[in-house]
Amino acid sequence: MSAELQYQYRLPTRQNVAKVLKNFEPKEGLIYLTGQVVLERDDTDVELPFRQESNFFYVTGVAEPDYCVVINIATKRIQLITPNIDPEHVMWMGMPDSLETLTAKYDVDEAIYVDKLGDILAAASTVYTLPTTKTDKVDSNVKLCGSDQSKKLHTAFAESRAYKADWEVDTIREANRISSYAHNKLMVAAHVGTTESKLFAKFLYECAFHDAFQQAYYPIVGVGMNAAVLHYNKNNARLTKANDLVLVDAGCEVDCYASDITRCFPVGGKFSPEARTIYTIVLDMQKACLAACKAGVAWEAIHNIAVDVATDGLLACGILVGDKKEILANYVTAAFFPHGIGHMLGLDVHDLGGYPEGTERIDAPGIRNLRMRRNLEAGFVVTVEPGVYFCDFLIDPVLNDATTGKYINKDALNKYKSVGGVRIEDNILITEDGHVNLTTAPKEIDDVEAMCASEE
Amino acid sequence: MSAELQYQYRLPTRQNVAKVLKNFEPKEGLIYLTGQVVLERDDTDVELPFRQESNFFYVTGVAEPDYCVVINIATKRIQLITPNIDPEHVMWMGMPDSLETLTAKYDVDEAIYVDKLGDILAAASTVYTLPTTKTDKVDSNVKLCGSDQSKKLHTAFAESRAYKADWEVDTIREANRISSYAHNKLMVAAHVGTTESKLFAKFLYECAFHDAFQQAYYPIVGVGMNAAVLHYNKNNARLTKANDLVLVDAGCEVDCYASDITRCFPVGGKFSPEARTIYTIVLDMQKACLAACKAGVAWEAIHNIAVDVATDGLLACGILVGDKKEILANYVTAAFFPHGIGHMLGLDVHDLGGYPEGTERIDAPGIRNLRMRRNLEAGFVVTVEPGVYFCDFLIDPVLNDATTGKYINKDALNKYKSVGGVRIEDNILITEDGHVNLTTAPKEIDDVEAMCASEE
Repeated sequence: MSAELQYQYRLPTRQNVAKVLKNFEPKEGLIYLTGQVVLERDDTDVELPFRQESNFFYVTGVAEPDYCVVINIATKRIQLITPNIDPEHVMWMGMPDSLETLTAKYDVDEAIYVDKLGDILAAASTVYTLPTTKTDKVDSNVKLCGSDQSKKLHTAFAESRAYKADWEVDTIREANRISSYAHNKLMVAAHVGTTESKLFAKFLYECAFHDAFQQAYYPIVGVGMNAAVLHYNKNNARLTKANDLVLVDAGCEVDCYASDITRCFPVGGKFSPEARTIYTIVLDMQKACLAACKAGVAWEAIHNIAVDVATDGLLACGILVGDKKEILANYVTAAFFPHGIGHMLGLDVHDLGGYPEGTERIDAPGIRNLRMRRNLEAGFVVTVEPGVYFCDFLIDPVLNDATTGKYINKDALNKYKSVGGVRIEDNILITEDGHVNLTTAPKEIDDVEAMCASEE
Repeated sequence: MSAELQYQYRLPTRQNVAKVLKNFEPKEGLIYLTGQVVLERDDTDVELPFRQESNFFYVTGVAEPDYCVVINIATKRIQLITPNIDPEHVMWMGMPDSLETLTAKYDVDEAIYVDKLGDILAAASTVYTLPTTKTDKVDSNVKLCGSDQSKKLHTAFAESRAYKADWEVDTIREANRISSYAHNKLMVAAHVGTTESKLFAKFLYECAFHDAFQQAYYPIVGVGMNAAVLHYNKNNARLTKANDLVLVDAGCEVDCYASDITRCFPVGGKFSPEARTIYTIVLDMQKACLAACKAGVAWEAIHNIAVDVATDGLLACGILVGDKKEILANYVTAAFFPHGIGHMLGLDVHDLGGYPEGTERIDAPGIRNLRMRRNLEAGFVVTVEPGVYFCDFLIDPVLNDATTGKYINKDALNKYKSVGGVRIEDNILITEDGHVNLTTAPKEIDDVEAMCASEE
């Protein structure tokens, strides 16, 4: 094999094609998908960082712009459609791979230039596309499928992508390894006087240093009350007070596969008594949920375990008062744990397949934000991310409501408020009889304090 | 002033509004602009990093999503249109600023919620928009301007933005300070065995560490022959050989204003004799160009100075042979210096105003890629970025052409080819009688070698 043909990973995309076809009813015709192009900012020529569309990547492994793919449903033949060679483009971007190199590199049946695409599509009995496929340049004589079939193809992708192959799990594990390493580095660096910016910068650096240039989502780095804003993204406050908690929710991509990890640690490395109490509640929530995760269990049941343990913890420390059953019946705990327990993870951070067709959300506080509602199955990779937050905007309406206000003790609440928010999030693979945790950053209080105390 | 009202910079956007109105013919009616929203990747909920549209930022200073602005042309009254408070959004993103805070923070006449926008627009004699303004939600009874007037408003923005106010120059200087610092750090870190990735990661880190989270463009980090690909962006090769040149073209934004700096330095810190020769040619090109930059000089004349000095240099080292006049007449030098000498710099890295209405590009090798063609004026900020590259794709056609091939000496060419490419790029402010250089990273050979030799 020539040097030109070497690359880090060979994604077995042909397996993925077979999986999608198995989940798709039509037995002949072509599937035609367009990969992402380089996007520019507004009306400028400033190019945005390129990221391949996830479904396209799933069946091609191509992470370069301007490609298309044609899959023959009956023969499973894959034709990778490559852009024509444009001298202007070569001047700025260098010579593209040859057709031979592309065929070998992506393990397709044939790589051909785009000028042959029109004839191929025109000859097909039906051309199936995804809702994201760009069809504006397709000739009017091509028999494109309707939007119903387009949605069905999307469902076939969603169902295929839900069950991760071993190599997909390995890729997510590698993203977790790099992100966990970066989280560790942030624990070490969280001293009084530094800033969220500097921790944010460090997270990006540690990932990119390990060739993970893309984040799976915009990182959240919030200290103190900023941690109570669920999707906080300013990341620019100063870490002024020892023992203030820092919440970091960040994960890189490896080969387009996401990691999604949250850790909380104290500025200066020592948990305050209040932070320790709240942190322990969240850790207990997570442990109880993880212990229950295995094939066959309903995801909403896992969510409810978190609510149950949170309620016990908040009762024990005095923030909640009264009868537990009444508290649960009135969803009071959702004022402190307002989001879902987790979601599917894969090529997208909130991966496809959470709500199979026909499944409705449960319309009640907290659980209505759950991003998935189905029974766990072996091969799913999900996040488990309980949290407890002190956000006035969420708590005040519950506190000021005649029915629910009586279950919250204001004095205890005020005592713990400065903790801000705690979330602990791991990525796990579901197995027949349990789970495998892919996340390695420390989360036990002693381990977090030890990591914070280690040398930079 | 409450703590809530503190922020790092107060951009005097009101001055900008006055400048735009001065360049715009209509004397009544409203200007209506939409700011950028948060964009998501494909059909996912993965949010792309937010960057405000440049013209909107120019007249508002608002770097948050979902705002609009209405400017009364006759009264210069500015109304900032803010999104309604959405409880769902507050849960994830926190409470937005109050209308009072927004009015003070952005120095506008009034901040109002978007539900009042319809009536304001409906009452206007004409509503002028930019080509980027989103008008799909505007009522059909609103008298929107035609596309001609929209283009004229765009020209008014372009002409206003071309002349930088002192505070704009200061902002670009600050971006240059941070980027120059990051370039220095990369010189120190370029050891045998490290990778382009690690330098790339370090550049992002040093910028973000200083709160510059946004790059003005995707950084180029290329070693050896990768430096000959003008917009190389893989940034993942290993730095294997001592003395190999690394080309880094990277610059951060500060408050949406760009820096755009290129430096070249040898792996391990010592220029090879060949690299020293080519580097010196490029440095001489830049010095000659800089010396000629002042108000009144045509930008194509500056480009031609670079071509002239490059031709002398390539003749002196034997890569070019024959009569200089013939070489210039046949544009042979463009095979080595294929791009333009530089461009306007401001809110966009290739800033508006390079080609005033009616100005055509010069259709000849090299100079046809010039991004600006007009006389320099005091207040312009431009890049000066000569380069010499050894890219077969560009050189071979010239070498194999019966007319031009004879001006290139193959043996000399082969001797220097491994240098890859050199570009040196500074950002300068044009003044009446010269220029002010805003870029501080070292570029003299001794200074670069000294920086490479300093401690990490």
